[in-house]
Amino acid sequence: MPSSTYKDEEIQQEDLLYTGKAKQLFSTSNPDIYWLHYLDSATALNGKVKEEYAGKGELNAQITRLLFQALDQAGITHHLLKTVSPRDQLVERVEIIPLEVVTRNVAAGHLVSRFGLKGGEVLTPPIREIYYKSDPLDDPFMNDSQAISLKIASQEELETLYQMADQVNDCLKAVFDEIGITLVDFKLEFGRRSRDGKLILADELSPDNMRLVDHTSGQSLDKDVFRQHKGDLRAGYREILNRLEKLF
Amino acid sequence: MPSSTYKDEEIQQEDLLYTGKAKQLFSTSNPDIYWLHYLDSATALNGKVKEEYAGKGELNAQITRLLFQALDQAGITHHLLKTVSPRDQLVERVEIIPLEVVTRNVAAGHLVSRFGLKGGEVLTPPIREIYYKSDPLDDPFMNDSQAISLKIASQEELETLYQMADQVNDCLKAVFDEIGITLVDFKLEFGRRSRDGKLILADELSPDNMRLVDHTSGQSLDKDVFRQHKGDLRAGYREILNRLEKLF
Repeated sequence: MPSSTYKDEEIQQEDLLYTGKAKQLFSTSNPDIYWLHYLDSATALNGKVKEEYAGKGELNAQITRLLFQALDQAGITHHLLKTVSPRDQLVERVEIIPLEVVTRNVAAGHLVSRFGLKGGEVLTPPIREIYYKSDPLDDPFMNDSQAISLKIASQEELETLYQMADQVNDCLKAVFDEIGITLVDFKLEFGRRSRDGKLILADELSPDNMRLVDHTSGQSLDKDVFRQHKGDLRAGYREILNRLEKLF
Repeated sequence: MPSSTYKDEEIQQEDLLYTGKAKQLFSTSNPDIYWLHYLDSATALNGKVKEEYAGKGELNAQITRLLFQALDQAGITHHLLKTVSPRDQLVERVEIIPLEVVTRNVAAGHLVSRFGLKGGEVLTPPIREIYYKSDPLDDPFMNDSQAISLKIASQEELETLYQMADQVNDCLKAVFDEIGITLVDFKLEFGRRSRDGKLILADELSPDNMRLVDHTSGQSLDKDVFRQHKGDLRAGYREILNRLEKLF
């Protein structure tokens, strides 16, 4: 377990605090610990398109668990404390920083149309972006200067976020490369840990938040399958989990 | 004259190189010098809306001349060498960096809707943004990481641009404050001087590229009058020029 103060006491699930696009967050009997429940829903266009896929929640919870295990080995601090069921996890209570931190190793998605790039182009160095998490504003892309002036994060916090995103990228690129998959891009969220204020990685690490392409077939194994109406996303998610399980 | 090598030789206007939204650029008999001719056109929505206002070119050329004079006093290097007619200027030949550098002291325009702000809110610190100059792509907003990875500018160049934009902001805010006007925001362009590669300020400094609000009346004196169909923009431009002329 990554937390030094967490003891393996009996944690009771308490109140539902928040239902997100693919997860529910509950308080627990320990004020420093939250209960995360993975749902089966898939969404696109910031929640405007939504579908249920039985078992998707478990796939994401298991992929997240294994990828956090890889981050443990790389010494990156994250919120996962314990798996309590195939789709339930105990996590550190954090105050989420309202920024999505995106890292792009290969040009894809709206970056391509925005800048007239060729999809699949390798980006050197990788591109780092932040988006302001706000449903009414549709998560607008912002720069550091805007985030600082609007008091969303300080310069120092942004530097820490980017440094951690780089470490996560190095670690996950290597993991996926080992199982024949290219990590095209991914989104991270961070929070300040309630018990000590430390900035740590939160949220899930799953194909909902990454673009992953099979080395051999060139096929998407992530949520793009759903976004682009190319069939059942679970086939790709299962393939990722199977390959990761062989690694750990 | 700010250039140390420019001699007051007889410069001949030669070929039309480029017609922009409100200016024309000509080569001259001196390979290190361009001829800038200010047009009477006003455009909005990246050129999609266009109107002619007789005399606007002269107003912008004169406002630009006086503001560059203020920058001279502050030691900021720019491209203007000499005024050859009320709407013609000799400028240093530069290779333009394809970035619009925007500085915002007060929330206005699309920043307000993008981030749900209150128009008129003072931004502390001022916000700095870059936009990729590309008509087919509609000048997309970008962050530093994108500019660096797409090889549009290096980290060092961006730092120099931002530093110069800050200096210009300090200088122009003081000038406008002295004549009872708030500098809300403005756009700068920069280029590498052909004779030595030095990064200098280029383009015009006019109400086409700034938001300027009268302290007393709260009225716009800039191109927003045209953008928002609020009458003849020349009244505000003339008012700015009159006040600036009293200062110099």
